[in-house]
Amino acid sequence: MADPTLDEVVALCKRRGFIFQSSEIYGGLASTYDYGHYGVLLKQNVKAEWWRAVVQERDDMVALDAAILMHPKTWEASGHLAGFTDPMVDCRTCKLRFRADQLEDSACGRKPSKRPGEHSECDLTEPRQFNLMFKTHMGPVEEDAAVVYLRPETAQGIFVNFKNVLQFARKKPPFGIAQVGKAFRNEITPGNFIFRTREFEQMEIEFFVPPADAEQWHERWMEQRMGWYTELGIRPDHLMLRKHGPDELSHYSSATSDIEYLFPMGWSELEGIANRGDFDLTQHAEHSGEKLEYFDQETRESYVPHVIEPSAGADRATLAFLVDAYETEEVEGRQRTVLRMHPRLAPVKVAVLPLVSKEGMPERAREIYEGLRGRIPAEYDEGGSIGKRYRRQDEIGTPWGVTIDGQTLEDDTVTLRDRDSLEQTRVPAGELADLLAERLEAPWTSPKLD
Amino acid sequence: MADPTLDEVVALCKRRGFIFQSSEIYGGLASTYDYGHYGVLLKQNVKAEWWRAVVQERDDMVALDAAILMHPKTWEASGHLAGFTDPMVDCRTCKLRFRADQLEDSACGRKPSKRPGEHSECDLTEPRQFNLMFKTHMGPVEEDAAVVYLRPETAQGIFVNFKNVLQFARKKPPFGIAQVGKAFRNEITPGNFIFRTREFEQMEIEFFVPPADAEQWHERWMEQRMGWYTELGIRPDHLMLRKHGPDELSHYSSATSDIEYLFPMGWSELEGIANRGDFDLTQHAEHSGEKLEYFDQETRESYVPHVIEPSAGADRATLAFLVDAYETEEVEGRQRTVLRMHPRLAPVKVAVLPLVSKEGMPERAREIYEGLRGRIPAEYDEGGSIGKRYRRQDEIGTPWGVTIDGQTLEDDTVTLRDRDSLEQTRVPAGELADLLAERLEAPWTSPKLD
Repeated sequence: MADPTLDEVVALCKRRGFIFQSSEIYGGLASTYDYGHYGVLLKQNVKAEWWRAVVQERDDMVALDAAILMHPKTWEASGHLAGFTDPMVDCRTCKLRFRADQLEDSACGRKPSKRPGEHSECDLTEPRQFNLMFKTHMGPVEEDAAVVYLRPETAQGIFVNFKNVLQFARKKPPFGIAQVGKAFRNEITPGNFIFRTREFEQMEIEFFVPPADAEQWHERWMEQRMGWYTELGIRPDHLMLRKHGPDELSHYSSATSDIEYLFPMGWSELEGIANRGDFDLTQHAEHSGEKLEYFDQETRESYVPHVIEPSAGADRATLAFLVDAYETEEVEGRQRTVLRMHPRLAPVKVAVLPLVSKEGMPERAREIYEGLRGRIPAEYDEGGSIGKRYRRQDEIGTPWGVTIDGQTLEDDTVTLRDRDSLEQTRVPAGELADLLAERLEAPWTSPKLD
Repeated sequence: MADPTLDEVVALCKRRGFIFQSSEIYGGLASTYDYGHYGVLLKQNVKAEWWRAVVQERDDMVALDAAILMHPKTWEASGHLAGFTDPMVDCRTCKLRFRADQLEDSACGRKPSKRPGEHSECDLTEPRQFNLMFKTHMGPVEEDAAVVYLRPETAQGIFVNFKNVLQFARKKPPFGIAQVGKAFRNEITPGNFIFRTREFEQMEIEFFVPPADAEQWHERWMEQRMGWYTELGIRPDHLMLRKHGPDELSHYSSATSDIEYLFPMGWSELEGIANRGDFDLTQHAEHSGEKLEYFDQETRESYVPHVIEPSAGADRATLAFLVDAYETEEVEGRQRTVLRMHPRLAPVKVAVLPLVSKEGMPERAREIYEGLRGRIPAEYDEGGSIGKRYRRQDEIGTPWGVTIDGQTLEDDTVTLRDRDSLEQTRVPAGELADLLAERLEAPWTSPKLD
């Protein structure tokens, strides 16, 4: 089947309560989104799988959760205050504002078939630099001394804590610091649903290594992070590693590769994996006067570790998992939409459904549900026809459905339905929890690859 | 033993890497804190236990994760724009600023033994209202039309999504919406470590009920929430429910009770449980023009549900659990500091320690560690004397220690040490995972209650 359009995914997200436009009753706030019930559970699972892979299953990673509001000197040192800008032009005629470097892809306000500047009435200003950090004031007075910024990336919270971690977590390079948290960028042209929003959540690692090992660790992290997406079911042919050309590289980076996913709007960045060298620690050492070095007991030498940064977007990853899972197919003459999602990512693992709302089936179904929910995220649903309830669970991506029917009341077996194969097998109710817990931990391959 | 001072808790948090002053290398940002490794794990556990109690174990709760940046009309409707203010006075002499309603507890800038206004040189302004919301601008132009605020509470994100949840989550009152997320208040006088900070994390529920049942649900939630803290080990005599007097009630509330904890600085609010009536939904209906009601199929009538709001602070709860667990005692002539924390809250559940770093003990210890970590958060530590390593784990609050010694290499039993009783028992290594998983789920009572 064809891959979904972005509109189809947005519609499903709204219909099933994954993601809503923010402040919708007030007409919405541009490019800001609220996660509804299943969206919260899905994104929680995405973050939990990242955490498991990069923190729990490793001995060389330390966790951090730095504040969003940081000391303004941080942004002087990092270069954001001077250089985190986009060039913009205004049209004096139509009052629209454009990114100067994206005029090719923009439409004139008067005649959308033309580009800004191409229409006879266009009157563009010279490009001006616009800083992307959100600015606010801390303390009761709005004065320059009280200006603080919403962090535009979580990374700097890690660098300014490098010394604390060295001292109190007793780590030595190679080791990393991992953090999940919100960041804010006052983007001029956000868009594509939750792909590019002004408020977003990052999953970032700064991995500190001896300078001589930087290249090797860069390679290792690229491989590791590509593997994470494919193990969680992303089809390998929809994923690629793209190396930045010399003209694309950030000022701090000697090498960056992006993991890109084939979104409905084309190949776009999911995660960047940069070799930042010693740029950040050196900058913060200079600006703070603190020594941000590691003293190697063996060689009796101090050095500034180099940094490999795998930086992923939690919202983008969530969108990629939704898009990759989305499928529409015909089953016995009826259309069904299904999220063929890795069971560990699915918001609900098992739906417990009485075949009909009578003859004691709801009572037995609730007992089975109560027995499962403590071990496995489960949902009980008795409303509507069984076909309608299956379709609902398919759209949520629930990998297993358990139906309680007449036979259950006789021999205590239930029907276990598989979301992907649609196979139905009879299983003793008492064996369900173990069986599903086992399947949940088993490796999984997207059935779209068959 | 005596309860700890706040300074003792702060010192332990820094020493063991729970919580650091934010942007410390730049001299810190006032009243802003970064969570280090064990702090992240502890706070994650606090939030996970809240989530388990109010979302996972209930059928009447829906999850939400709304954006921090909301449509500014939200704050018109909620009353925050007009009324979320503190009265302030400035001293023209010493240039300090004070909360007009807290002059009694403030110190004159020139003569700290006196109160502001009492010293002959004091020259105080009239009180002025100061709005506590952080203001910023969205989009490229700093103009009035683009003003947005950092949400001062997560609650409003729930109210503006009420209609979406009714429609897509198929719930009917009584049901609740639960949310964990950051909020920001430009407090004039933050303080007491992570108790009152300008950036903080809330765990909020808005529970929608038929108006006639509001009082009963208010009672039920007070009981439920008190029980949550005591089940997680808070000593009941350090916890109280305090009913707001008529002069204390917020404009939206007909009744509020605070759960207070006996912090080192005195009894202070952990969580507020308010009966908000129909205030919020009515306000947002008026300002948005949307109907925010529930249509009852049975009675064929529409009504505006009343709202019970249990609103807890994740940082405050974390601080309370730290304070309540903290104990210093003498063991065999040596002082030890220990966090007697509920095992489910403890950042690390089990430490695996080879008695000495030789004779094959580290190798066997690592094998045991690898076998445990997949099921139970574990830490491996082979550095330093066994006594020093135990003391470190005591200060982190690790409930169990497993020591691998000479006998382990003969009969594969290990020593299991209990943090609280200091009892050591020999256990077959192969039984550890099951044994600890079982203990982790068992009810727990603070040994301080003995």
